[in-house]
Amino acid sequence: MNTKLKNEELGRMSADDFKGAKKLDLVVLLDNVRSLHNVGSVFRTCDAFLVEKLYLCGYTGTPPNKEINKTALGATESVDWKHEKDIKSLILTLKSQKMTVFAVEQAKNAVFLENLEVSKGQKYALVFGNEVNGVDQEVVDLCDGCIEISQGGTKHSLNIAVSAGVVIWEFYKRFKK
Amino acid sequence: MNTKLKNEELGRMSADDFKGAKKLDLVVLLDNVRSLHNVGSVFRTCDAFLVEKLYLCGYTGTPPNKEINKTALGATESVDWKHEKDIKSLILTLKSQKMTVFAVEQAKNAVFLENLEVSKGQKYALVFGNEVNGVDQEVVDLCDGCIEISQGGTKHSLNIAVSAGVVIWEFYKRFKK
Repeated sequence: MNTKLKNEELGRMSADDFKGAKKLDLVVLLDNVRSLHNVGSVFRTCDAFLVEKLYLCGYTGTPPNKEINKTALGATESVDWKHEKDIKSLILTLKSQKMTVFAVEQAKNAVFLENLEVSKGQKYALVFGNEVNGVDQEVVDLCDGCIEISQGGTKHSLNIAVSAGVVIWEFYKRFKK
Repeated sequence: MNTKLKNEELGRMSADDFKGAKKLDLVVLLDNVRSLHNVGSVFRTCDAFLVEKLYLCGYTGTPPNKEINKTALGATESVDWKHEKDIKSLILTLKSQKMTVFAVEQAKNAVFLENLEVSKGQKYALVFGNEVNGVDQEVVDLCDGCIEISQGGTKHSLNIAVSAGVVIWEFYKRFKK
């Protein structure tokens, strides 16, 4: 029998416990994401998959915000986040801290997500861009590489919150192993 | 250099080509999903990952709908879909057609997504439920099993469009192999 688990049976940690818990060696950058619904949803994904820090860059909306809360459902209280107006200087800083920075983009020489290899002990940063234009080419140029999600349909991309979910999930799985 | 690919360089198929293209042995059922934004996003995911059919069940909204279009971005034209008021009789029908039906839920004896094994030649159906209550227990009881996405944070679930993205992605990868 597949009896559904009650929330209290899931044994989730409190927001305070989360602050002190061991996170993945992974930070996430959203650049010029327009939809607050998407921002909130990424907060929730970063909570679920133990992302170390979420950077909200450019004109990406920030908490406190009613629209973000609708989809974040409290994850703005647990996930460590920061606003950074200038993503380029942030990427240079992260690289100076020896992080490997990937833009999630459809690009020449991109690594397909299913072939991604993650080195334990290495820190990673993932950059997700605007809903329409993706990650700017000059931001891509600053990154160490691109990760592309294989797709087979008529559209040219997935929703950004879904893309973030799929890519962060793959990092979560690899780090957990 | 990771030069971003232009849309025309992605070689995506047209909506007509999509209708005739080989799909995954996978159908997706949304039951009582309230948010039209989520419905549209799942349409887009079903397009990207070549889902055979999307069933919109119970009070889940259906096209044509302006709110669904905002996130589906045309995928309502490519993805085959149908409204089914009664998900229980639909599940029984799918099972009579030898499909294996999984609810995506946190439940006793659920299979963790990373451990999922997919048999080629077998057809699968995935059921995703309401944003707050998930899949009803009596619907879960009709399914062959549950799939659970491992999570580590404070929240009790992911956004439903993100959950659908992650689980459908795993089926897409396994079928493509």
